[in-house]
Amino acid sequence: MPSYTAPTRDLQFVLHDLLKISDSDIPGYADLDRDFTAAIIEEAGRLSSEVLAPLNAVGDREGCRLENGVVRTPTGFREAFDQLREGGWTALDCAEEYGGQGLPAIMRTATNEAFVSANMALNMYQGLTHGAYLAILHHGTEAQKAEWLPKLVSCEWTGTMNLTEPHCGTDLGLMRTKAEPQEDGSYRITGQKIFISAGEHDMADNIVHLVLAKIPGGPDGIKGVSLFIVPKFLPNEDGSLGDRNEVSCGKLEEKMGIHGNATCVMNYDGATGWLLGEAHKGMRAMFTMMNDARLGVGLQGLAQAEVAYQNALAYARDRLQGRDITGPANPEGPADPIIVHPDVRRSLMEQKSFVEGARAFGLWSTMLLDRAETMHDADAEGLISLLTPVIKGFFTDRGYEISTLAQQVYGGHGYIEEWGMSQYVRDARIAMIYEGANGIQALDLVGRKLAAQGGKPAMAFFELVKTFIKENEGDAELKAGYLDPLKAASKDLQAAMMYFMAEGTKNPQNALAGSYDFMTMMGHVCLGLMWAMMARAAKDALAAGASDEDFYRAKLATGRFYMARQLPATGMHLARITSGAEPVMALEAANF
Amino acid sequence: MPSYTAPTRDLQFVLHDLLKISDSDIPGYADLDRDFTAAIIEEAGRLSSEVLAPLNAVGDREGCRLENGVVRTPTGFREAFDQLREGGWTALDCAEEYGGQGLPAIMRTATNEAFVSANMALNMYQGLTHGAYLAILHHGTEAQKAEWLPKLVSCEWTGTMNLTEPHCGTDLGLMRTKAEPQEDGSYRITGQKIFISAGEHDMADNIVHLVLAKIPGGPDGIKGVSLFIVPKFLPNEDGSLGDRNEVSCGKLEEKMGIHGNATCVMNYDGATGWLLGEAHKGMRAMFTMMNDARLGVGLQGLAQAEVAYQNALAYARDRLQGRDITGPANPEGPADPIIVHPDVRRSLMEQKSFVEGARAFGLWSTMLLDRAETMHDADAEGLISLLTPVIKGFFTDRGYEISTLAQQVYGGHGYIEEWGMSQYVRDARIAMIYEGANGIQALDLVGRKLAAQGGKPAMAFFELVKTFIKENEGDAELKAGYLDPLKAASKDLQAAMMYFMAEGTKNPQNALAGSYDFMTMMGHVCLGLMWAMMARAAKDALAAGASDEDFYRAKLATGRFYMARQLPATGMHLARITSGAEPVMALEAANF
Repeated sequence: MPSYTAPTRDLQFVLHDLLKISDSDIPGYADLDRDFTAAIIEEAGRLSSEVLAPLNAVGDREGCRLENGVVRTPTGFREAFDQLREGGWTALDCAEEYGGQGLPAIMRTATNEAFVSANMALNMYQGLTHGAYLAILHHGTEAQKAEWLPKLVSCEWTGTMNLTEPHCGTDLGLMRTKAEPQEDGSYRITGQKIFISAGEHDMADNIVHLVLAKIPGGPDGIKGVSLFIVPKFLPNEDGSLGDRNEVSCGKLEEKMGIHGNATCVMNYDGATGWLLGEAHKGMRAMFTMMNDARLGVGLQGLAQAEVAYQNALAYARDRLQGRDITGPANPEGPADPIIVHPDVRRSLMEQKSFVEGARAFGLWSTMLLDRAETMHDADAEGLISLLTPVIKGFFTDRGYEISTLAQQVYGGHGYIEEWGMSQYVRDARIAMIYEGANGIQALDLVGRKLAAQGGKPAMAFFELVKTFIKENEGDAELKAGYLDPLKAASKDLQAAMMYFMAEGTKNPQNALAGSYDFMTMMGHVCLGLMWAMMARAAKDALAAGASDEDFYRAKLATGRFYMARQLPATGMHLARITSGAEPVMALEAANF
Repeated sequence: MPSYTAPTRDLQFVLHDLLKISDSDIPGYADLDRDFTAAIIEEAGRLSSEVLAPLNAVGDREGCRLENGVVRTPTGFREAFDQLREGGWTALDCAEEYGGQGLPAIMRTATNEAFVSANMALNMYQGLTHGAYLAILHHGTEAQKAEWLPKLVSCEWTGTMNLTEPHCGTDLGLMRTKAEPQEDGSYRITGQKIFISAGEHDMADNIVHLVLAKIPGGPDGIKGVSLFIVPKFLPNEDGSLGDRNEVSCGKLEEKMGIHGNATCVMNYDGATGWLLGEAHKGMRAMFTMMNDARLGVGLQGLAQAEVAYQNALAYARDRLQGRDITGPANPEGPADPIIVHPDVRRSLMEQKSFVEGARAFGLWSTMLLDRAETMHDADAEGLISLLTPVIKGFFTDRGYEISTLAQQVYGGHGYIEEWGMSQYVRDARIAMIYEGANGIQALDLVGRKLAAQGGKPAMAFFELVKTFIKENEGDAELKAGYLDPLKAASKDLQAAMMYFMAEGTKNPQNALAGSYDFMTMMGHVCLGLMWAMMARAAKDALAAGASDEDFYRAKLATGRFYMARQLPATGMHLARITSGAEPVMALEAANF
């Protein structure tokens, strides 16, 4: 029942009005003009609406089945995945020397939103493959790159990420999977991994597992963890598939959502693997994969919110209940569409202002990533490293909340599976958990990233906000509606950071007890900055006589909503944070 | 895998230390001494833990099945329901003359929490029956009461509430179901109703549907709606079951949760029914049922949060990951239990401070209800009427959020159905929707209840807060930790009300656009009041030399957390509210 249309107009606004990508000095950006990006986004949108979206409910209903060690994916998934592969979508931003299209990552972010909105479970089969591609690209030997990358780029083979074991998730130092060196330079991998997305399936000819394991005799804990390439089938010298490796799926998990994606218990029984990167430095390579995955998961939050919002909006325009308190809006009909009611409008504005703000922030951040990657820009790298946990944590928390809000617009129908809104909520829920639960993102942000490089990236972020405000506060409308609220929110965020610096050194719990609030607060300030920048861009477009005035005026109105109705959250978070660790930790664990 | 234990100690604290029920002048309260209430609660707890809770996952997994017009409930449900019936639990607060036990409603609230925590879907079969009992008790003729009440009290027959039709949920004036008067004084009911909980099932011999319908020729809209008693089987004169009535279940809905409860499409094809109460005044009788149901649904929010919290707490004490930043808490083990980590502790404190605060507020409110009902106390009636939408809306929003927080503590395991946390979230979700979606509760609160009786109940609420603060601010510890934050939050709430009064008269959208924030804010102030009162009670108990010091100190610590970390939300809500309707309504519906 639900439908999906890619937000082409809005993506074009962000790429060109806001980010002006084709004016950028980032390699490859000059080619990204309006027509080019429109063509790509429209094609991705078409594939999403026509091929992927109709399979979303099918995947939810059928799920995956494990039969004699083989995982069957839902009806139509393989064929749809073929279209993703054959259209080159999985290779969009991959290196040309391995068969990729060599486009900047920003084009991947822009198109992936549509794929994930349309079918999150299906798109995950390529999402982790991209992470495996990056890990091998950055840490593999030339021989490894030549052997594995072309197939991963084309998604003929898919990739996985094997970290978690039953007794160890966040604390990977407790890992038990072992890798014993063999005379031929390979390793024998033995152990059990759980929660392996796309661990086994029938969508690709081979599966390339990247597996964390310990080489016996290495250092204890996380410092003794190495990363291995462990394929389902061992490739022959000529690239054809050889013997089946000693790795198998022991169980499929029954989950709350993303039923179309196979979440596997993977058993390694002396499987053959090859070291990727240095021994005992496995986390370094894994983090390359994980950072990519964290941004990807953050975007899942946005993408689920977007599709849920689209459907809530359509329902709110269609469903007739009650009358507009200011006078009938649909006097000929038995009642007015519920979009006339202020509380429904509040909910829709919350949804809209999040998805548009997050879309801008996701693309703005990917531009930083492109700059960091291709220009080796240390400032951009510091900033994207700081912002990655915010995107992962804030986008996914909000993605779930927004999907829930959208479901609520449907009233009772929202709770009925047939209407499709429940699936968006259930699918969105996982994004808060995997790739580091959001509490871990908050810890990473406050415990690591804020203080990184002596606080340089954090200062750079505040500088960015300050500079934008300073350069634009001559515009009275911008100042009152957007810049002043942004300034207040940014001041709250800075005060929280100051509090951490002053009180966290006395007792680190003072910082950690406020870490989650800080992450949320920072997410709001980031979206606040985007809305201020979008308001500027919209005003410029209007001043330049843009033809679609309604679009730009809607931007201004939506931004004003965000400033007036969402940003005030920073004050609450600051109050919580500055109450310190005492109220949080006073109660002894035994006395709960 | 999840387990449940009734919070007997905490219930006893609320009933006796906080509310001092056996000292109350409310009829029946004098008998409710510590031993008596403990015995009842423990027995309800035993039934909940041993009989109902083990069936919770069974109900979720199996769901209900419709076979040839008959609905089969999950394995074990009927037998468990028999135990509820036979133990007299469904009759606890019903009138003795109809076979009830004649206890005050507060004992129903105290025991129901356990039943709902243990198995929400199963308990719903009795929940709506209680509503039907009340509707007939208050609006039926003596003959109707004699005919229907004894069987409803014993739950030999269960009840339902039939309001919604496919095209009309909130806006009942659009109703199409018609009731044609017959010569024998009965009516022929024809139409379709949807979302009928427990509409058809195999748990009881008969089902008594209370059905809203329009008598042809009556007034248009909501003023032409009447309420009818429409049984599944027509009783004979001697009370035995006669012919099957022309009512049937056309479909079972597939839902996000509460799978163990049958949500039915009900078809009335000239079914025989009898008018309950006056013609065209059906909403009056329905509201008796609905108010009871709204309080009941509010308590579902609390109950799901409680059981989810209990399991999150157990998991956090058991799961070993990472080390306490202040030094190993479990030096012999491979890692520390995750409860040592500040952000996990924050989450658990949020959970704990909500459930204990909501428990107190639910019982405190039921005490008001008892006073209103048995002593015809108009002030108590005004207050409970004001607070009903807050309990329904705030408790269920928070119930879902808290269940989600509890699920998050489990990390990846939280998303796997086998661990049981997903079910709490999925079940809790419906409570925000049914019995009037929470946006409607906010509308009821701000659009109706605040201004009722010239604002007398609202003023009485603020007076209550003020008086408590005034009487206790001589205690410096109480003042700093509890009363000052409560005073600030209450001031925010009053400022919001003043804003509505000043600006809502100019444009009602200024009030309606802030209604949801107001409801949430008021919920926080209500829980803040409870925490201040509980802190007072805990201090008194400690001063009196209570033996379980840890329990009372835990109360003080948990209350301090609520004040420091939850109450600051009121400032944010006030800021949103006073930004007015403009940011919410500025964007035209067509330009979204």
